[in-house]
Amino acid sequence: MGHHILLDSFVNPQSIAVIGVSSRTGPGTFNVLERMLASGYQGVIYPVNPRGGSILGLKVYKSVKDIDGHVDLAVIATPRTAVPGVVKQCTEMGIKAVVIITQGFSDAHDEAGMLMHQEIVNTIRGTKTRVVGPNTIGIVNTFANVDTSFVSFNTRTSPVGIVCQSGILLNASQDFAGGLGIGIDIGNTCDIGFTECMEYLADHDQIQVINLHMEGLRDGRRFLAAAREVTPRKPVLVLKTGSSEEGARAASSHSGSLAGEDAVFSAAFAQSGIIRVEDSTRLAELNQTFITYRQMKGKRIAFMTISGGAGIMAVDACSKNGLKAARLSDQTITALAGIFPDWMKVGNPADIWPAGMAKGYGKITALALDKILADDNVDAVLCATTGYLDPANDPLNTIDVINDIAARYPDKPTAVWVFGPHKQQYAKKFRDAKVAVAYNSPESALYCLAKLYQYHSTIKEQQYELYQAPQDTNHAGAAAIIAAGMGNHITALNEQALDVVEAYGIPVVRRGLAQTPEQALQLAEDLGYPVALKIASSDITHKSDAGGVILNIKSGYELVKAYDKIMQNALAHRPDARINGVLVQSQITRGTEVILGGRQDPQFGPVLVYGLGGIYTELVRDVTFRIAPVTRDEALEMIKETQSYKILSGARGQEPGDIEGLVDCIVRMGALLCDLPEITEVDINPLLVKPSGCLALDARLIPAYRE
Amino acid sequence: MGHHILLDSFVNPQSIAVIGVSSRTGPGTFNVLERMLASGYQGVIYPVNPRGGSILGLKVYKSVKDIDGHVDLAVIATPRTAVPGVVKQCTEMGIKAVVIITQGFSDAHDEAGMLMHQEIVNTIRGTKTRVVGPNTIGIVNTFANVDTSFVSFNTRTSPVGIVCQSGILLNASQDFAGGLGIGIDIGNTCDIGFTECMEYLADHDQIQVINLHMEGLRDGRRFLAAAREVTPRKPVLVLKTGSSEEGARAASSHSGSLAGEDAVFSAAFAQSGIIRVEDSTRLAELNQTFITYRQMKGKRIAFMTISGGAGIMAVDACSKNGLKAARLSDQTITALAGIFPDWMKVGNPADIWPAGMAKGYGKITALALDKILADDNVDAVLCATTGYLDPANDPLNTIDVINDIAARYPDKPTAVWVFGPHKQQYAKKFRDAKVAVAYNSPESALYCLAKLYQYHSTIKEQQYELYQAPQDTNHAGAAAIIAAGMGNHITALNEQALDVVEAYGIPVVRRGLAQTPEQALQLAEDLGYPVALKIASSDITHKSDAGGVILNIKSGYELVKAYDKIMQNALAHRPDARINGVLVQSQITRGTEVILGGRQDPQFGPVLVYGLGGIYTELVRDVTFRIAPVTRDEALEMIKETQSYKILSGARGQEPGDIEGLVDCIVRMGALLCDLPEITEVDINPLLVKPSGCLALDARLIPAYRE
Repeated sequence: MGHHILLDSFVNPQSIAVIGVSSRTGPGTFNVLERMLASGYQGVIYPVNPRGGSILGLKVYKSVKDIDGHVDLAVIATPRTAVPGVVKQCTEMGIKAVVIITQGFSDAHDEAGMLMHQEIVNTIRGTKTRVVGPNTIGIVNTFANVDTSFVSFNTRTSPVGIVCQSGILLNASQDFAGGLGIGIDIGNTCDIGFTECMEYLADHDQIQVINLHMEGLRDGRRFLAAAREVTPRKPVLVLKTGSSEEGARAASSHSGSLAGEDAVFSAAFAQSGIIRVEDSTRLAELNQTFITYRQMKGKRIAFMTISGGAGIMAVDACSKNGLKAARLSDQTITALAGIFPDWMKVGNPADIWPAGMAKGYGKITALALDKILADDNVDAVLCATTGYLDPANDPLNTIDVINDIAARYPDKPTAVWVFGPHKQQYAKKFRDAKVAVAYNSPESALYCLAKLYQYHSTIKEQQYELYQAPQDTNHAGAAAIIAAGMGNHITALNEQALDVVEAYGIPVVRRGLAQTPEQALQLAEDLGYPVALKIASSDITHKSDAGGVILNIKSGYELVKAYDKIMQNALAHRPDARINGVLVQSQITRGTEVILGGRQDPQFGPVLVYGLGGIYTELVRDVTFRIAPVTRDEALEMIKETQSYKILSGARGQEPGDIEGLVDCIVRMGALLCDLPEITEVDINPLLVKPSGCLALDARLIPAYRE
Repeated sequence: MGHHILLDSFVNPQSIAVIGVSSRTGPGTFNVLERMLASGYQGVIYPVNPRGGSILGLKVYKSVKDIDGHVDLAVIATPRTAVPGVVKQCTEMGIKAVVIITQGFSDAHDEAGMLMHQEIVNTIRGTKTRVVGPNTIGIVNTFANVDTSFVSFNTRTSPVGIVCQSGILLNASQDFAGGLGIGIDIGNTCDIGFTECMEYLADHDQIQVINLHMEGLRDGRRFLAAAREVTPRKPVLVLKTGSSEEGARAASSHSGSLAGEDAVFSAAFAQSGIIRVEDSTRLAELNQTFITYRQMKGKRIAFMTISGGAGIMAVDACSKNGLKAARLSDQTITALAGIFPDWMKVGNPADIWPAGMAKGYGKITALALDKILADDNVDAVLCATTGYLDPANDPLNTIDVINDIAARYPDKPTAVWVFGPHKQQYAKKFRDAKVAVAYNSPESALYCLAKLYQYHSTIKEQQYELYQAPQDTNHAGAAAIIAAGMGNHITALNEQALDVVEAYGIPVVRRGLAQTPEQALQLAEDLGYPVALKIASSDITHKSDAGGVILNIKSGYELVKAYDKIMQNALAHRPDARINGVLVQSQITRGTEVILGGRQDPQFGPVLVYGLGGIYTELVRDVTFRIAPVTRDEALEMIKETQSYKILSGARGQEPGDIEGLVDCIVRMGALLCDLPEITEVDINPLLVKPSGCLALDARLIPAYRE
């Protein structure tokens, strides 16, 4: 794999050119060269500065072209206007790896920055030179003392690989990630991005856990395909920032407004086995969790506690994180009852304090933990204990006791929550012993165990099911309808949208377009009463809002009245609306209304949206997303993870809906989105899920007019 | 206020008897006397143990009755069987304050524990003796070196008062609460509880913030009334544990199953101005927030950051916590643009790093922070900066700079997020300076600012509106209907429930009970078609599930068919059901279905439930709670805080509902619950909210048969 050899030049360079090295040294000067020497780098360094001379005892070359040895990695820290020229020189020298630290390119406000960004991209195209940055602190490799940052910092060496878009994840890696092995700040990603770095770290022997700090992503589909290969081998944790609404794009349809980018990222991560970290303060303990524990087979947690109050907090956190308090076996209960005072109730949480106070806390900790870990009903244990005093002279210090017992049960995580002012010292001692993790809080402990279980139960064992495209779709027919609409410059296809989804095999209500009351009468007679009337106008987006829908028409007399009323309402709502006529549909009322649609996402391409339909869609937002296409299993997952699944399953006196039929519709909608990239947005709302079959009652489709 | 003098004997005792003192001393012996001496207590101590002699240089009295001086506080740590007798002696000695450390009373599994608990309660009744505990570590007063705990620990003195139900909140107070002034562990609360302690701390000059750690609560109404007095004077933060479903009671109606106890606690706290802390790890920083900042006037946050990536994280956290990113004024933008490099975009977040690197980080920090704090569009600032190195020799240390500027704007919180391995040292230096708080993460900083804003915007200024009971309610009539139902041993009143709510002035659909098809025909003719038929049986709880509802009956022919069908369905559903007949109702379809009900809560008494009605009630759980009664303003708040408010306001082509009429129904339901405690549960579902007026279509009421 070529990119691995390539990234090795960045991560393990034998020689580094530091271009634009400053002559100022000392605190506050942000000198890359000084920092590199301080980090203990053992390779050859070639400082470059047009003024020449020497800095920090090293000869300074006036130009990168003057360097008389082989350069693995060039680090550019010149003023931004000089950068494109220096990159050009690097390509001419055949330097394979270039880090551009300088800011002010695609991150800048001005046009000059964007033009220089493009110039760099053009310069390296077709050469052997690859770029990390600009706007980066570059590379940190704590295994080999490589560090291209300009800011002084310390970290702790750990088997964690970080790919980030902000230097703070590397400079503050001890705080954010609990330590660092290899870090790559990809900055503006003018060239090298997440996919290559993730693949490199996946193959790197010293890396056990991969962290991504992601602000944006290009080529999302290639990234997801790579992630599907990596995640069963190593856990990939992502801190996706920029999740607030400021980032959400303006959109003009239901699916568009619902598919906020953040929910799409979450769906994409889940589909490719990436674990999303919702809170930056949890990342360090999550890394330690994945480094320490090799397995977690179920969600049943036992709690062994020095304090009843702490036990209650831990059970709260357990429930909040979707795990379950274990039901201890009778054997375990009996064994614990033999240790505890007679008056105590034995259960989970097991409060060992009264026994510990009477018989010795260390002894009781060992006895109880061993019984609990041996219980077949227990998948993991949380020990809540105190750090009131320095562990060196704390009579309640049970670190060795817990580690000794925990080591006997390597497939059942023994987690520890130490509370009290000395908990940091306790955490360090547990970290050094590498058997159990001491967490900062029960919330954090249970959050991490839940992610560990997610990894072992779903991701690690996952066999990604092969997608099979539905057979009987009419691609040409669907494309022709859209092309005709685009020919007429229609912004939003409406009744034609029903024709498009019908071409892809999604069942659509029987209907016809009437342009006079007489035509409507004829259609209604053909379809049979009752019927529904709906205004057909590409200028009226939300028909109900415009009074453009009348349901349950039972006779010709009612129909003629309704026809007139709808026309009046439509013109009152929007006098200049182009009216195509009135859609006459069979009236169907039995069934549950869902929404099914999708859109082209800038990062991930075609994305499916599914959820509760009808008037509640935007109010309740009971929706879910997937990157299309989806397999039948994934479609079923979508259905099951919404609240409205309970209605479809027959809750509250409803007839159960046809889930198989709905799965089919979702798979077909995914195929439609993938086959026809000229669809910007489409949704069926409502799609009626009946006891037998589904029926699209209304749809909208927004074609892409851009080149 | 008598209880203040009383609690002073606990918190500031001049003399303490330690009863049941152990002769074993040293680490691991948990000797209360040794701990008390080590804490530096300056008053008189009287050790008591039947064996007499001396311990730690103090004379040991054989009985509390032998003590020859005045005892302010007795601390009992004898075996549990001895406790009731010792309490008796204390009452006889006229000791006003007793702490019972011993475990094994109402916390025990066995009957003996509960009996001894009751014996203690009986012993002190009518005496001057008051008890804290049993099952407690008692009292900690760091201002006066009072400490009745048996476990060694250290804390930091701070103006925080803690009332808790687990000793860990005091022993680990530095970790949980950031420090401690006065702590009272009320344990099993056989006597003194939250209310008295909260009132005491509210009046204590050295306490600025009150923390409650609550596992359960007795006499919730008295507590809430007290909290309404206290919260405008001092912030009260509560960590309510035991919030997971294990604690939720089994319930048999909609309102019952929805009113999980935890949501009721949340409603009660909100109604009385108590701030709920959702995560124990946030408590310490929240305390520091309330100690440090005196005001926060709005939710507009500016971000000044050393790192663009950190700025994005902070904006995410801002949005997540319901605050807003400030829009900086043109003047501020211009001023910042004059400092920043030309190529940079100036906005919020303001990334000061490029300017700082070029011109000096400290200087730029001062300039930018001053401009931002002066901006009228800014209510608070978060400064994101680094703690990569020890602040003592970190060229990026801007602690003094930030404090100097922040001190000039005392009504605008300047919050700091320091990231990097030395952030704890930074936090300490900020804490010592008492101007700004350094938070552990942006999530924590914005969470705390949001709570601070909540306090200053709603609680501190709050004038609790006076409740006015609705006038035209028929108490006697409602009571008679329920009494009649109870006379017939009906578990759940159904059609009679509509009569009860009608007696309280809630509009109910026109209706009548038919026991033959002929009666039904007559009723339908009187009411006018269309009508709805509903089975009337106290044995059929969910009518729709049983096929017991047929709507939209338009003729006598349809009605007779429907009558038979409903009878058949009901008997098929439950062959032994007692059928009262069939309810014939006017058919009303226009309007939004809501649920309105309530129940008797074990802690808080009558509790109201309101939310989305119809088949979605239990699926979507768009519901809210209040302790009854409620004012019209509170009723309006309930309506506005549910999702379904958008439907009632006329979203998606619906006609707007009669909000004033709905407010009236909610207030009346509250009055009904308060006036008739014999109602265990009641709900109207659906209550139809029409464009003019509301109409109850169906209701259930569960009477209380217990004494």
